[in-house]
Amino acid sequence: LVKGENKVFRKTFLNMHFYDQAQFYLALTDEQRHLLYHILDPHEVGDFFDTIEDDLPEMTELLAEMDPQYAAELLNSMFDDNAADILEHLPKEDVDHYLSLMDKADAIQLRKLLHYDTETAGGIMTTNFVSLRADLTVGQALAELKREADEAETIYYVYLVDADRYLVGVITLRDLIITDNHTKLAEVMTPNVITASVHDEQADVAQKIRDYDFIALPVVDDAQKLVGIITVDDVIEVIDDEAQSDYSGLAGVDVDDVSENPFKAASKRLPWLITLLFLGMSTATLINHYESLLSEASILAVFISLITGTAGNAGTQSLAVAVRRLALSNDDKPKLLRLIGSEILTGLVTGVVTGLTITLIVGIWKQNFVLGLTIGLAMTAAITVANLAGSLIPMLMDKLGFDPAVASGPFITTLSDLTSVLIYFSIAQIFLHAFLN
Amino acid sequence: LVKGENKVFRKTFLNMHFYDQAQFYLALTDEQRHLLYHILDPHEVGDFFDTIEDDLPEMTELLAEMDPQYAAELLNSMFDDNAADILEHLPKEDVDHYLSLMDKADAIQLRKLLHYDTETAGGIMTTNFVSLRADLTVGQALAELKREADEAETIYYVYLVDADRYLVGVITLRDLIITDNHTKLAEVMTPNVITASVHDEQADVAQKIRDYDFIALPVVDDAQKLVGIITVDDVIEVIDDEAQSDYSGLAGVDVDDVSENPFKAASKRLPWLITLLFLGMSTATLINHYESLLSEASILAVFISLITGTAGNAGTQSLAVAVRRLALSNDDKPKLLRLIGSEILTGLVTGVVTGLTITLIVGIWKQNFVLGLTIGLAMTAAITVANLAGSLIPMLMDKLGFDPAVASGPFITTLSDLTSVLIYFSIAQIFLHAFLN
Repeated sequence: LVKGENKVFRKTFLNMHFYDQAQFYLALTDEQRHLLYHILDPHEVGDFFDTIEDDLPEMTELLAEMDPQYAAELLNSMFDDNAADILEHLPKEDVDHYLSLMDKADAIQLRKLLHYDTETAGGIMTTNFVSLRADLTVGQALAELKREADEAETIYYVYLVDADRYLVGVITLRDLIITDNHTKLAEVMTPNVITASVHDEQADVAQKIRDYDFIALPVVDDAQKLVGIITVDDVIEVIDDEAQSDYSGLAGVDVDDVSENPFKAASKRLPWLITLLFLGMSTATLINHYESLLSEASILAVFISLITGTAGNAGTQSLAVAVRRLALSNDDKPKLLRLIGSEILTGLVTGVVTGLTITLIVGIWKQNFVLGLTIGLAMTAAITVANLAGSLIPMLMDKLGFDPAVASGPFITTLSDLTSVLIYFSIAQIFLHAFLN
Repeated sequence: LVKGENKVFRKTFLNMHFYDQAQFYLALTDEQRHLLYHILDPHEVGDFFDTIEDDLPEMTELLAEMDPQYAAELLNSMFDDNAADILEHLPKEDVDHYLSLMDKADAIQLRKLLHYDTETAGGIMTTNFVSLRADLTVGQALAELKREADEAETIYYVYLVDADRYLVGVITLRDLIITDNHTKLAEVMTPNVITASVHDEQADVAQKIRDYDFIALPVVDDAQKLVGIITVDDVIEVIDDEAQSDYSGLAGVDVDDVSENPFKAASKRLPWLITLLFLGMSTATLINHYESLLSEASILAVFISLITGTAGNAGTQSLAVAVRRLALSNDDKPKLLRLIGSEILTGLVTGVVTGLTITLIVGIWKQNFVLGLTIGLAMTAAITVANLAGSLIPMLMDKLGFDPAVASGPFITTLSDLTSVLIYFSIAQIFLHAFLN
């Protein structure tokens, strides 16, 4: 990228895959990028901007450094779902400015996309699809495809509509090229089209595309008219985002940014740690309340961390299963009670087995089976309660309309510390005189 | 599905999407399925068997209930990556039997696929792709595609090879239909093809397809000859599997099966719980060792769970980030030392902030700032160590060739309980006389 060799650079650069162009571009210095804007037109930059997906915060800065007209043309030449993703992160006045500099029809299209919730089908769909009238012949359709190929995000599925833009069928490019040119589309199309509504959750859309092995899924509005499509590459992002957020939830830290800067990393982790520290203080206060019991039987202190730790582990397990189950299931309410019953039973089974094990261990170790039984009983109860909390809290969150993954793993373990300690000391108090003989 | 109405049923059934056919089929009784095998030929069953992916254990049973010849033809008509996935789960003699009943060339093809590791590019690729000679014209290529369309898993990418099956270029069906029929493929193809090697990890392949927004990626063998392709639908499964295994690791339970049977669920969770219970026993033994210290200053027991809990939370956070980072990065060794340094610093920053907070809280609550400082110091050290363990252990696992996700969250928290208690009592012992005055 030396001045004077622009032509050679241009040729080499444009021969690269869009993704490689993007990686190259992102590695440039400010000065080099400005040079690049002179060498490439906004459409050429738009081509590789379409492949940058995870760096949105940076992208708004990159737009700001361009001439506004250049930026507007770039956005205009991108697939409109990607352009909308970027615009969503800009302040309203910037969005209005860019849209005013665009082709009017495109600006209206983009503004419509910006109205939908980001995590719905409407929010991730593109309007760059090909739809044709079902009364055309295969030959006419192929000719039409050639004209529209440049604008469309995919031409491998062609959606067929009637005069009122109602979706009546779909045909794949594969079927088009193996069918005789004179055949009418209506005769060879698949009439029962699987669709999504603009309001569908992105996770459900992703599941549909995945189940049917589609390359794209058409999206219809409330009036059942075809308004967009969602392509498989967007679905991959969705699946990854959803997995990422479940995972972050379980860890109690946003793992999206794996930056190596220790201060940035610490600032991401501290809010949860400090919040949980305060929750943990209630456990400490509770133990403090039992200090006289502890000074009478200091042996009790030996098993605090064993009981809280084991109950925490059990709670984490059941939390993970519950979050996963919520992510999978589309069917709902009537099963809730059965699920709760099943979780109580799972908790009891794991609790009893673990409790019996520890009863034996402590009984033999301390030669005191009453103490062993005390610890075992406490462990059984603590695990059952932790299990129940681990599965009920995410379900409750979900019912209340929150993301169940917000009930993070550390939150469940810290909460289970509190209940475990309460259970432990309550039971210990009852058996105190028995195990001290 | 009533006897006598076979023709009507056949027509309705075959009009459904393959995925819906599969769902219908999986819901049938044994008897109904046997009836279905009479109504549909093995190719028709094979079409929807291609869409069943997550139910492999069941599928081997389903094959066993069919006539072996029927099953062999069904496998033969499936895309060979899916057929290979099923065969992998069968005993060797069954595989040999089915292969012996198949078309010889197909059997050889399948046997080759079975040789590759399941989690590599070779293990997930299909050989049902279209490759043409680069010296054909676009018109010839389209004619050839029509012939091969039925066999290929995708015809949207056409791979171009020379006389020795070396990959020389790729052209999309999109480009084919917009290009003049008389043009030579070599003139319009993309010459620098992004490929995977048969030995590449499936996760790396998935990342490549995702980055480049490909629908398929060609796979070459050690001699650089084209041997297969990996399609985007397989990549979605891979991305989901990898996310699933990271998530299961963090939770210390395999969440793949979210069955509601409490005994099955308990049997999945108990092995880890009991293992960790024994590890937890070493923490109990350690505390037991400090019993005299505890009876002298029973106030120390109040903060055990707060310190172990907070350190455990910090360890979980850094574990999650480390596992995520390992899943993302392809570049390696020279950065290890820097990562360790960065993690120590992150641990120190979070530790010091949290430690200072708790010093103040305890100091004010107990009106004893020496006690506060003792707890604060212990907390700082415990968090730093837990952070380091949370990030180093998965890195170590990775270096040793294990899956870093095996270092589960509960394992890290239980381990961190042990180190936290050790740190806590060691520090408390030093300051004992100071805070008791």
